[in-house]
Amino acid sequence: MSATLYIIGVGPGDPDLLTVKALTLLRQCPVIATPTASLKGHSTALAIVRQALSAKEMQEKEIVELHFPMQKIHRDQEPEAEVLQAWQEAVQKIVAKLRQGKSVAFPTLGDPAIYSTGYYLYMTITEIYPQAGVRFVPGISAMSSCSANTSAPLCLGDDMLAVIPATFSDKRLRQVLESFDTIVLMKVHKVMDTLIPLLHDLHLIENAILVERVGMTDERVMSDLTVFLGKEGQVQQVHYFSTIIVKKRDSFVRLRSKITHTFLAPRTA
Amino acid sequence: MSATLYIIGVGPGDPDLLTVKALTLLRQCPVIATPTASLKGHSTALAIVRQALSAKEMQEKEIVELHFPMQKIHRDQEPEAEVLQAWQEAVQKIVAKLRQGKSVAFPTLGDPAIYSTGYYLYMTITEIYPQAGVRFVPGISAMSSCSANTSAPLCLGDDMLAVIPATFSDKRLRQVLESFDTIVLMKVHKVMDTLIPLLHDLHLIENAILVERVGMTDERVMSDLTVFLGKEGQVQQVHYFSTIIVKKRDSFVRLRSKITHTFLAPRTA
Repeated sequence: MSATLYIIGVGPGDPDLLTVKALTLLRQCPVIATPTASLKGHSTALAIVRQALSAKEMQEKEIVELHFPMQKIHRDQEPEAEVLQAWQEAVQKIVAKLRQGKSVAFPTLGDPAIYSTGYYLYMTITEIYPQAGVRFVPGISAMSSCSANTSAPLCLGDDMLAVIPATFSDKRLRQVLESFDTIVLMKVHKVMDTLIPLLHDLHLIENAILVERVGMTDERVMSDLTVFLGKEGQVQQVHYFSTIIVKKRDSFVRLRSKITHTFLAPRTA
Repeated sequence: MSATLYIIGVGPGDPDLLTVKALTLLRQCPVIATPTASLKGHSTALAIVRQALSAKEMQEKEIVELHFPMQKIHRDQEPEAEVLQAWQEAVQKIVAKLRQGKSVAFPTLGDPAIYSTGYYLYMTITEIYPQAGVRFVPGISAMSSCSANTSAPLCLGDDMLAVIPATFSDKRLRQVLESFDTIVLMKVHKVMDTLIPLLHDLHLIENAILVERVGMTDERVMSDLTVFLGKEGQVQQVHYFSTIIVKKRDSFVRLRSKITHTFLAPRTA
Protein backbone atom coordinates (compact mmCIF):
# COMPACT_ATOMS: atom_id res chain seq x y z
CA MET A 1 0.00 0.00 0.00
CA SER A 2 1.56 3.23 -1.08
CA ALA A 3 -1.03 5.60 0.43
CA THR A 4 0.57 7.70 3.13
CA LEU A 5 -0.59 9.98 5.93
CA TYR A 6 1.36 13.23 5.75
CA ILE A 7 1.36 15.33 8.92
CA ILE A 8 2.27 18.69 7.45
CA GLY A 9 3.47 21.83 9.22
CA VAL A 10 1.80 24.76 7.44
CA GLY A 11 3.63 27.54 9.29
CA PRO A 12 2.20 30.24 11.54
CA GLY A 13 -0.31 31.90 9.20
CA ASP A 14 1.12 33.47 6.06
CA PRO A 15 0.46 30.91 3.29
CA ASP A 16 3.75 31.94 1.67
CA LEU A 17 5.51 30.42 4.68
CA LEU A 18 4.51 26.94 3.54
CA THR A 19 7.44 24.99 2.18
CA VAL A 20 7.48 23.85 -1.43
CA LYS A 21 7.33 20.29 -0.12
CA ALA A 22 4.23 21.02 1.99
CA LEU A 23 2.50 22.72 -0.91
CA THR A 24 3.33 19.88 -3.31
CA LEU A 25 2.05 17.21 -0.93
CA LEU A 26 -1.13 19.18 -0.13
CA ARG A 27 -1.77 19.37 -3.86
CA GLN A 28 -1.09 15.66 -4.39
CA CYS A 29 -3.14 14.24 -1.51
CA PRO A 30 -6.78 13.68 -2.53
CA VAL A 31 -7.88 13.80 1.13
CA ILE A 32 -7.36 16.47 3.78
CA ALA A 33 -8.12 15.44 7.37
CA THR A 34 -8.81 18.19 9.86
CA PRO A 35 -10.18 18.39 13.37
CA THR A 36 -13.62 19.97 13.59
CA ALA A 37 -13.65 23.74 13.66
CA SER A 38 -14.40 23.83 17.38
CA LEU A 39 -10.79 22.91 18.16
CA LYS A 40 -8.72 26.06 18.44
CA GLY A 41 -5.82 26.19 16.06
CA HIS A 42 -6.92 23.56 13.65
CA SER A 43 -9.49 25.48 11.73
CA THR A 44 -6.62 27.97 11.34
CA ALA A 45 -4.40 25.30 9.77
CA LEU A 46 -7.10 24.46 7.25
CA ALA A 47 -7.69 28.18 6.58
CA ILE A 48 -3.99 28.51 5.67
CA VAL A 49 -4.32 25.58 3.27
CA ARG A 50 -7.37 27.22 1.69
CA GLN A 51 -5.31 30.36 1.05
CA ALA A 52 -2.37 28.40 -0.34
CA LEU A 53 -4.32 26.25 -2.79
CA SER A 54 -6.61 27.50 -5.53
CA ALA A 55 -10.40 27.33 -5.14
CA LYS A 56 -10.46 24.67 -7.85
CA GLU A 57 -7.84 22.58 -6.08
CA MET A 58 -9.81 22.81 -2.83
CA GLN A 59 -13.05 21.77 -4.52
CA GLU A 60 -11.43 18.55 -5.66
CA LYS A 61 -10.33 17.65 -2.14
CA GLU A 62 -12.21 15.28 0.07
CA ILE A 63 -12.29 16.87 3.53
CA VAL A 64 -12.49 14.42 6.43
CA GLU A 65 -13.53 16.02 9.71
CA LEU A 66 -12.12 14.42 12.82
CA HIS A 67 -13.84 14.82 16.15
CA PHE A 68 -11.09 15.03 18.73
CA PRO A 69 -12.03 15.66 22.34
CA MET A 70 -10.65 18.97 23.59
CA GLN A 71 -9.44 17.37 26.80
CA LYS A 72 -5.74 17.66 27.44
CA ILE A 73 -3.84 14.42 27.11
CA HIS A 74 -1.14 13.82 29.70
CA ARG A 75 1.64 11.87 28.17
CA ASP A 76 2.77 9.92 31.18
CA GLN A 77 -0.66 8.54 31.91
CA GLU A 78 -3.15 6.66 29.80
CA PRO A 79 -5.89 8.96 28.50
CA GLU A 80 -9.41 8.29 29.75
CA ALA A 81 -11.23 5.49 27.97
CA GLU A 82 -13.71 7.77 26.21
CA VAL A 83 -10.96 10.11 25.00
CA LEU A 84 -9.02 7.15 23.72
CA GLN A 85 -12.09 5.83 21.95
CA ALA A 86 -12.80 9.18 20.29
CA TRP A 87 -9.21 9.34 19.05
CA GLN A 88 -9.41 5.81 17.73
CA GLU A 89 -12.65 6.56 15.90
CA ALA A 90 -11.09 9.66 14.37
CA VAL A 91 -8.09 7.67 13.25
CA GLN A 92 -10.29 4.96 11.74
CA LYS A 93 -11.61 7.55 9.30
CA ILE A 94 -8.08 8.19 8.10
CA VAL A 95 -7.28 4.49 7.96
CA ALA A 96 -10.35 3.91 5.78
CA LYS A 97 -9.00 6.41 3.23
CA LEU A 98 -5.51 4.90 3.32
CA ARG A 99 -7.02 1.46 2.71
CA GLN A 100 -8.69 2.88 -0.40
CA GLY A 101 -5.21 3.82 -1.59
CA LYS A 102 -5.78 7.54 -0.97
CA SER A 103 -3.04 9.57 0.66
CA VAL A 104 -4.19 11.89 3.44
CA ALA A 105 -2.77 15.27 4.40
CA PHE A 106 -3.19 16.45 8.00
CA PRO A 107 -2.22 20.14 8.16
CA THR A 108 -0.97 21.35 11.53
CA LEU A 109 -0.24 24.95 12.54
CA GLY A 110 3.42 25.96 12.74
CA ASP A 111 5.94 23.13 12.97
CA PRO A 112 4.91 19.59 13.99
CA ALA A 113 8.15 19.43 16.04
CA ILE A 114 6.92 22.06 18.50
CA TYR A 115 3.86 21.14 20.60
CA SER A 116 1.74 19.77 17.79
CA THR A 117 -1.23 17.47 18.21
CA GLY A 118 -0.01 15.76 15.04
CA TYR A 119 1.98 13.44 17.28
CA TYR A 120 -1.06 12.22 19.19
CA LEU A 121 -2.54 11.33 15.83
CA TYR A 122 0.71 9.57 14.91
CA MET A 123 0.83 7.60 18.16
CA THR A 124 -2.79 6.52 17.82
CA ILE A 125 -2.50 5.47 14.19
CA THR A 126 0.72 3.48 14.66
CA GLU A 127 -0.96 1.67 17.53
CA ILE A 128 -4.15 0.63 15.80
CA TYR A 129 -2.82 0.32 12.24
CA PRO A 130 0.94 -0.23 12.48
CA GLN A 131 1.38 -0.80 8.75
CA ALA A 132 0.25 2.78 7.99
CA GLY A 133 2.87 4.89 6.26
CA VAL A 134 3.16 8.16 8.15
CA ARG A 135 5.49 11.03 7.23
CA PHE A 136 6.09 14.36 8.93
CA VAL A 137 6.81 17.50 6.95
CA PRO A 138 8.50 20.28 8.95
CA GLY A 139 7.04 23.78 9.02
CA ILE A 140 8.01 27.28 10.09
CA SER A 141 7.37 27.60 13.82
CA ALA A 142 5.75 30.66 15.39
CA MET A 143 8.97 31.46 17.27
CA SER A 144 11.02 31.30 14.10
CA SER A 145 8.63 33.63 12.28
CA CYS A 146 8.60 35.92 15.29
CA SER A 147 12.40 36.08 15.28
CA ALA A 148 12.44 36.99 11.59
CA ASN A 149 9.73 39.63 11.96
CA THR A 150 11.53 41.34 14.85
CA SER A 151 15.02 40.98 13.27
CA ALA A 152 16.23 39.34 16.45
CA PRO A 153 17.91 35.92 16.50
CA LEU A 154 16.72 33.31 18.96
CA CYS A 155 20.31 32.25 19.50
CA LEU A 156 23.69 33.37 18.25
CA GLY A 157 27.28 32.56 19.19
CA ASP A 158 27.15 30.51 22.37
CA ASP A 159 23.64 31.49 23.45
CA MET A 160 21.47 28.93 25.16
CA LEU A 161 17.83 28.79 24.08
CA ALA A 162 14.97 27.37 26.16
CA VAL A 163 11.45 26.73 24.91
CA ILE A 164 9.01 26.07 27.74
CA PRO A 165 5.31 26.27 28.50
CA ALA A 166 4.70 29.27 30.78
CA THR A 167 2.32 27.14 32.80
CA PHE A 168 5.13 25.70 34.95
CA SER A 169 5.58 26.62 38.59
CA ASP A 170 7.13 30.00 39.36
CA LYS A 171 10.17 28.27 40.81
CA ARG A 172 10.94 26.27 37.69
CA LEU A 173 10.20 29.21 35.40
CA ARG A 174 12.43 31.43 37.50
CA GLN A 175 15.30 28.96 37.25
CA VAL A 176 15.07 28.77 33.47
CA LEU A 177 14.64 32.55 33.11
CA GLU A 178 17.75 33.04 35.21
CA SER A 179 20.02 30.55 33.49
CA PHE A 180 19.23 30.85 29.76
CA ASP A 181 20.00 33.63 27.25
CA THR A 182 16.77 33.39 25.27
CA ILE A 183 13.56 31.97 26.66
CA VAL A 184 10.50 31.32 24.51
CA LEU A 185 7.43 31.12 26.72
CA MET A 186 4.53 29.26 25.15
CA LYS A 187 0.90 29.13 26.29
CA VAL A 188 1.15 32.44 28.12
CA HIS A 189 -2.45 33.58 27.73
CA LYS A 190 -3.68 31.84 30.89
CA VAL A 191 -0.84 32.84 33.20
CA MET A 192 -0.24 36.53 32.43
CA ASP A 193 -1.29 37.40 35.99
CA THR A 194 1.68 35.62 37.52
CA LEU A 195 4.11 35.71 34.61
CA ILE A 196 4.31 39.49 34.20
CA PRO A 197 5.18 40.16 37.88
CA LEU A 198 7.77 37.37 37.68
CA LEU A 199 9.44 38.99 34.65
CA HIS A 200 9.37 42.31 36.49
CA ASP A 201 10.90 40.75 39.61
CA LEU A 202 13.74 39.31 37.56
CA HIS A 203 14.33 42.65 35.81
CA LEU A 204 13.53 40.98 32.51
CA ILE A 205 10.36 42.81 31.54
CA GLU A 206 12.36 45.24 29.39
CA ASN A 207 13.84 42.28 27.55
CA ALA A 208 10.53 40.69 26.69
CA ILE A 209 8.11 41.05 23.84
CA LEU A 210 4.73 39.45 23.33
CA VAL A 211 3.65 38.36 19.89
CA GLU A 212 0.05 37.53 19.12
CA ARG A 213 -1.05 35.62 16.01
CA VAL A 214 2.43 35.78 14.48
CA GLY A 215 2.43 35.54 10.71
CA MET A 216 -1.29 36.22 10.44
CA THR A 217 -2.66 39.36 8.89
CA ASP A 218 -3.68 40.66 12.32
CA GLU A 219 -0.33 39.91 13.96
CA ARG A 220 0.43 42.17 16.93
CA VAL A 221 3.82 42.70 18.54
CA MET A 222 3.79 44.26 22.01
CA SER A 223 7.21 45.57 22.94
CA ASP A 224 6.23 47.17 26.26
CA LEU A 225 4.91 44.58 28.66
CA THR A 226 4.95 46.98 31.62
CA VAL A 227 1.41 47.95 30.57
CA PHE A 228 0.26 44.71 32.20
CA LEU A 229 1.89 45.54 35.55
CA GLY A 230 -0.44 46.28 38.43
CA LYS A 231 -3.35 44.80 36.54
CA GLU A 232 -3.25 41.39 38.18
CA GLY A 233 -6.62 39.86 38.71
CA GLN A 234 -8.05 41.45 35.60
CA VAL A 235 -8.61 39.28 32.60
CA GLN A 236 -5.75 40.11 30.29
CA GLN A 237 -6.84 40.42 26.73
CA VAL A 238 -4.13 38.45 25.05
CA HIS A 239 -4.89 35.97 22.36
CA TYR A 240 -4.67 32.19 22.64
CA PHE A 241 -1.89 32.29 20.00
CA SER A 242 0.49 34.38 22.09
CA THR A 243 4.17 33.81 22.72
CA ILE A 244 6.51 35.80 24.94
CA ILE A 245 10.17 35.89 23.97
CA VAL A 246 12.72 36.99 26.56
CA LYS A 247 16.16 37.87 25.24
CA LYS A 248 19.01 38.91 27.49
CA ARG A 249 21.67 39.52 24.87
CA ASP A 250 20.90 41.80 21.93
CA SER A 251 17.69 42.35 23.76
CA PHE A 252 14.65 43.74 22.07
CA VAL A 253 15.24 47.07 23.81
CA ARG A 254 17.68 48.28 21.19
CA LEU A 255 15.66 46.67 18.46
CA ARG A 256 12.33 48.16 19.36
CA SER A 257 12.53 50.96 16.86
CA LYS A 258 12.90 48.37 14.16
CA ILE A 259 9.97 46.22 15.23
CA THR A 260 7.30 46.33 12.60
CA HIS A 261 3.83 45.20 13.37
CA THR A 262 3.35 43.22 10.24
CA PHE A 263 5.69 41.95 7.61
CA LEU A 264 3.84 40.79 4.61
CA ALA A 265 6.04 40.12 1.64
CA PRO A 266 4.41 40.34 -1.78
CA ARG A 267 2.09 37.38 -2.22
CA THR A 268 3.03 34.91 -4.87
CA ALA A 269 0.80 35.04 -7.90
CA MET B 1 15.02 53.65 -1.72
CA SER B 2 13.01 50.49 -2.04
CA ALA B 3 15.92 48.08 -2.54
CA THR B 4 16.07 45.65 0.35
CA LEU B 5 18.55 43.15 1.73
CA TYR B 6 16.74 39.87 2.39
CA ILE B 7 18.48 37.46 4.75
CA ILE B 8 16.80 34.24 3.73
CA GLY B 9 16.73 30.91 5.54
CA VAL B 10 16.99 28.22 2.87
CA GLY B 11 16.45 25.21 5.13
CA PRO B 12 18.81 22.35 5.89
CA GLY B 13 19.50 21.01 2.39
CA ASP B 14 16.49 19.73 0.48
CA PRO B 15 15.53 22.56 -1.91
CA ASP B 16 11.87 21.60 -1.45
CA LEU B 17 12.19 22.76 2.16
CA LEU B 18 12.47 26.37 1.02
CA THR B 19 9.33 28.33 1.77
CA VAL B 20 7.29 29.83 -1.05
CA LYS B 21 8.28 33.26 0.29
CA ALA B 22 12.00 32.41 0.19
CA LEU B 23 11.71 31.06 -3.34
CA THR B 24 9.74 34.10 -4.53
CA LEU B 25 12.25 36.56 -3.07
CA LEU B 26 15.24 34.61 -4.41
CA ARG B 27 13.63 34.81 -7.85
CA GLN B 28 12.90 38.53 -7.52
CA CYS B 29 16.26 39.72 -6.21
CA PRO B 30 18.70 40.51 -9.05
CA VAL B 31 21.68 40.06 -6.71
CA ILE B 32 22.68 37.12 -4.53
CA ALA B 33 25.37 37.80 -1.93
CA THR B 34 27.27 34.84 -0.56
CA PRO B 35 30.40 34.32 1.52
CA THR B 36 33.28 32.82 -0.42
CA ALA B 37 33.23 29.08 -0.75
CA SER B 38 35.98 28.65 1.85
CA LEU B 39 33.48 29.37 4.61
CA LYS B 40 31.84 26.16 5.71
CA GLY B 41 28.10 26.18 5.40
CA HIS B 42 27.73 29.09 3.09
CA SER B 43 28.69 27.45 -0.13
CA THR B 44 26.04 24.93 0.93
CA ALA B 45 23.37 27.65 1.18
CA LEU B 46 24.20 28.82 -2.35
CA ALA B 47 24.18 25.22 -3.58
CA ILE B 48 20.63 24.85 -2.26
CA VAL B 49 19.61 28.02 -4.13
CA ARG B 50 21.16 26.64 -7.32
CA GLN B 51 19.01 23.52 -6.98
CA ALA B 52 15.85 25.50 -6.25
CA LEU B 53 16.14 27.95 -9.14
CA SER B 54 16.41 27.06 -12.82
CA ALA B 55 19.74 27.31 -14.64
CA LYS B 56 18.35 30.24 -16.60
CA GLU B 57 17.27 32.05 -13.46
CA MET B 58 20.72 31.55 -11.94
CA GLN B 59 22.46 32.85 -15.08
CA GLU B 60 20.60 36.13 -14.76
CA LYS B 61 21.71 36.63 -11.17
CA GLU B 62 24.59 38.83 -10.19
CA ILE B 63 26.57 36.89 -7.57
CA VAL B 64 28.47 39.04 -5.08
CA GLU B 65 31.15 37.15 -3.16
CA LEU B 66 31.80 38.38 0.35
CA HIS B 67 35.10 37.71 2.04
CA PHE B 68 34.29 37.14 5.69
CA PRO B 69 37.09 36.16 8.04
CA MET B 70 36.57 32.71 9.52
CA GLN B 71 37.45 33.97 12.98
CA LYS B 72 34.76 33.49 15.57
CA ILE B 73 33.11 36.68 16.71
CA HIS B 74 32.36 36.92 20.42
CA ARG B 75 29.28 38.96 20.96
CA ASP B 76 30.13 40.55 24.26
CA GLN B 77 33.41 41.93 23.04
CA GLU B 78 34.29 44.11 20.08
CA PRO B 79 35.76 42.03 17.24
CA GLU B 80 39.39 42.66 16.33
CA ALA B 81 39.96 45.68 14.13
CA GLU B 82 40.93 43.68 11.05
CA VAL B 83 37.92 41.38 11.39
CA LEU B 84 35.69 44.39 11.74
CA GLN B 85 37.24 46.00 8.68
CA ALA B 86 36.79 42.86 6.59
CA TRP B 87 33.12 42.73 7.57
CA GLN B 88 32.65 46.37 6.74
CA GLU B 89 34.27 45.91 3.33
CA ALA B 90 32.00 42.94 2.66
CA VAL B 91 28.96 44.93 3.66
CA GLN B 92 29.99 47.85 1.44
CA LYS B 93 29.61 45.56 -1.57
CA ILE B 94 26.00 44.93 -0.58
CA VAL B 95 25.37 48.61 0.14
CA ALA B 96 26.66 49.51 -3.33
CA LYS B 97 24.02 47.25 -4.89
CA LEU B 98 21.25 48.60 -2.67
CA ARG B 99 22.26 52.15 -3.68
CA GLN B 100 21.80 51.10 -7.30
CA GLY B 101 18.24 50.15 -6.39
CA LYS B 102 18.96 46.42 -6.59
CA SER B 103 17.57 44.16 -3.90
CA VAL B 104 20.02 41.61 -2.53
CA ALA B 105 19.31 38.10 -1.28
CA PHE B 106 21.67 36.59 1.29
CA PRO B 107 20.84 32.87 1.61
CA THR B 108 21.69 31.29 4.95
CA LEU B 109 21.56 27.59 5.84
CA GLY B 110 18.63 26.46 7.98
CA ASP B 111 16.80 29.16 9.88
CA PRO B 112 18.33 32.61 10.50
CA ALA B 113 16.85 32.47 14.03
CA ILE B 114 19.17 29.64 15.06
CA TYR B 115 22.91 30.43 15.12
CA SER B 116 23.10 32.14 11.75
CA THR B 117 25.85 34.50 10.61
CA GLY B 118 23.09 36.48 8.91
CA TYR B 119 22.80 38.49 12.12
CA TYR B 120 26.43 39.61 12.04
CA LEU B 121 25.76 40.89 8.55
CA TYR B 122 22.62 42.63 9.83
CA MET B 123 24.42 44.25 12.73
CA THR B 124 27.24 45.49 10.52
CA ILE B 125 24.97 46.87 7.81
CA THR B 126 22.66 48.69 10.23
CA GLU B 127 25.72 50.25 11.81
CA ILE B 128 27.39 51.59 8.67
CA TYR B 129 24.27 52.20 6.57
CA PRO B 130 21.34 52.60 8.96
CA GLN B 131 18.87 53.52 6.23
CA ALA B 132 19.26 50.06 4.62
CA GLY B 133 16.06 48.07 4.50
CA VAL B 134 16.80 44.60 5.88
CA ARG B 135 14.27 41.79 6.18
CA PHE B 136 14.63 38.29 7.56
CA VAL B 137 12.81 35.34 6.04
CA PRO B 138 12.48 32.33 8.36
CA GLY B 139 13.62 28.88 7.25
CA ILE B 140 13.31 25.26 8.32
CA SER B 141 15.95 24.58 10.96
CA ALA B 142 18.09 21.45 11.02
CA MET B 143 16.51 20.37 14.31
CA SER B 144 13.01 20.77 12.90
CA SER B 145 13.86 18.72 9.83
CA CYS B 146 15.53 16.14 12.03
CA SER B 147 12.41 15.86 14.17
CA ALA B 148 10.24 15.32 11.09
CA ASN B 149 12.59 12.73 9.58
CA THR B 150 12.69 10.70 12.79
CA SER B 151 8.94 11.09 13.52
CA ALA B 152 9.82 12.37 16.99
CA PRO B 153 8.57 15.72 18.33
CA LEU B 154 11.05 18.12 19.91
CA CYS B 155 8.44 18.99 22.52
CA LEU B 156 4.92 17.88 23.31
CA GLY B 157 2.51 18.51 26.18
CA ASP B 158 4.50 20.23 28.92
CA ASP B 159 7.98 19.26 27.69
CA MET B 160 10.82 21.71 28.11
CA LEU B 161 13.21 22.05 25.15
CA ALA B 162 16.77 23.35 25.37
CA VAL B 163 18.97 24.22 22.40
CA ILE B 164 22.61 24.67 23.38
CA PRO B 165 26.07 24.53 21.89
CA ALA B 166 27.78 21.35 23.11
CA THR B 167 30.96 23.34 23.62
CA PHE B 168 29.90 24.48 27.09
CA SER B 169 31.59 23.19 30.23
CA ASP B 170 30.66 19.71 31.42
CA LYS B 171 29.05 21.20 34.50
CA ARG B 172 26.69 23.45 32.60
CA LEU B 173 25.91 20.79 30.01
CA ARG B 174 25.19 18.29 32.78
CA GLN B 175 22.78 20.67 34.45
CA VAL B 176 20.81 21.24 31.25
CA LEU B 177 20.85 17.54 30.34
CA GLU B 178 19.48 16.73 33.78
CA SER B 179 16.71 19.31 33.90
CA PHE B 180 15.21 19.40 30.39
CA ASP B 181 13.08 16.86 28.52
CA THR B 182 14.59 17.39 25.09
CA ILE B 183 18.06 18.77 24.52
CA VAL B 184 19.38 19.71 21.09
CA LEU B 185 23.17 19.82 21.15
CA MET B 186 24.71 21.92 18.41
CA LYS B 187 28.34 22.04 17.28
CA VAL B 188 29.08 18.55 18.59
CA HIS B 189 31.78 17.58 16.11
CA LYS B 190 34.64 19.03 18.16
CA VAL B 191 33.57 17.74 21.57
CA MET B 192 32.55 14.13 20.91
CA ASP B 193 35.42 12.94 23.13
CA THR B 194 33.89 14.46 26.25
CA LEU B 195 30.23 14.58 25.26
CA ILE B 196 29.74 10.86 24.66
CA PRO B 197 31.10 9.81 28.09
CA LEU B 198 28.95 12.52 29.68
CA LEU B 199 25.80 11.16 28.00
CA HIS B 200 26.81 7.67 29.13
CA ASP B 201 27.37 8.87 32.69
CA LEU B 202 23.93 10.41 32.79
CA HIS B 203 22.33 7.23 31.37
CA LEU B 204 21.16 9.24 28.39
CA ILE B 205 23.15 7.63 25.61
CA GLU B 206 20.23 5.33 24.77
CA ASN B 207 18.04 8.42 24.40
CA ALA B 208 20.32 10.20 21.95
CA ILE B 209 20.65 10.19 18.21
CA LEU B 210 23.19 11.94 16.03
CA VAL B 211 22.14 13.40 12.72
CA GLU B 212 24.70 14.43 10.13
CA ARG B 213 23.86 16.69 7.18
CA VAL B 214 20.15 16.55 7.90
CA GLY B 215 18.00 17.18 4.84
CA MET B 216 20.87 16.67 2.43
CA THR B 217 21.02 13.73 0.06
CA ASP B 218 23.77 12.13 2.15
CA GLU B 219 21.98 12.59 5.47
CA ARG B 220 22.97 10.02 8.09
CA VAL B 221 21.10 9.21 11.29
CA MET B 222 23.06 7.31 13.95
CA SER B 223 20.76 5.82 16.53
CA ASP B 224 23.39 3.94 18.52
CA LEU B 225 25.94 6.32 19.98
CA THR B 226 27.51 3.65 22.17
CA VAL B 227 29.80 2.90 19.20
CA PHE B 228 31.76 5.99 20.20
CA LEU B 229 32.30 4.79 23.76
CA GLY B 230 35.85 3.85 24.71
CA LYS B 231 37.20 5.60 21.65
CA GLU B 232 38.15 8.81 23.39
CA GLY B 233 41.25 10.42 22.04
CA GLN B 234 40.60 9.14 18.56
CA VAL B 235 39.42 11.59 15.99
CA GLN B 236 35.71 10.93 15.66
CA GLN B 237 34.56 11.02 12.10
CA VAL B 238 31.47 13.06 12.48
CA HIS B 239 30.64 15.84 10.11
CA TYR B 240 30.72 19.56 10.84
CA PHE B 241 26.93 19.62 10.27
CA SER B 242 26.11 17.26 13.12
CA THR B 243 23.49 17.63 15.79
CA ILE B 244 22.75 15.36 18.73
CA ILE B 245 19.20 15.24 20.01
CA VAL B 246 18.55 13.82 23.45
CA LYS B 247 14.95 12.96 24.27
CA LYS B 248 13.85 11.62 27.63
CA ARG B 249 10.13 11.22 26.95
CA ASP B 250 9.01 9.27 23.90
CA SER B 251 12.67 8.61 23.51
CA PHE B 252 14.18 7.48 20.26
CA VAL B 253 14.59 4.01 21.73
CA ARG B 254 11.04 2.99 20.86
CA LEU B 255 11.19 4.90 17.61
CA ARG B 256 14.42 3.43 16.32
CA SER B 257 12.75 0.89 14.13
CA LYS B 258 10.98 3.72 12.39
CA ILE B 259 14.06 5.83 11.81
CA THR B 260 14.73 6.08 8.13
CA HIS B 261 18.06 7.20 6.87
CA THR B 262 16.75 9.52 4.26
CA PHE B 263 13.36 10.94 3.56
CA LEU B 264 13.20 12.46 0.16
CA ALA B 265 9.70 13.33 -0.93
CA PRO B 266 9.09 13.49 -4.67
CA ARG B 267 10.84 16.57 -6.03
CA THR B 268 8.64 19.24 -7.46
CA ALA B 269 8.70 19.37 -11.23
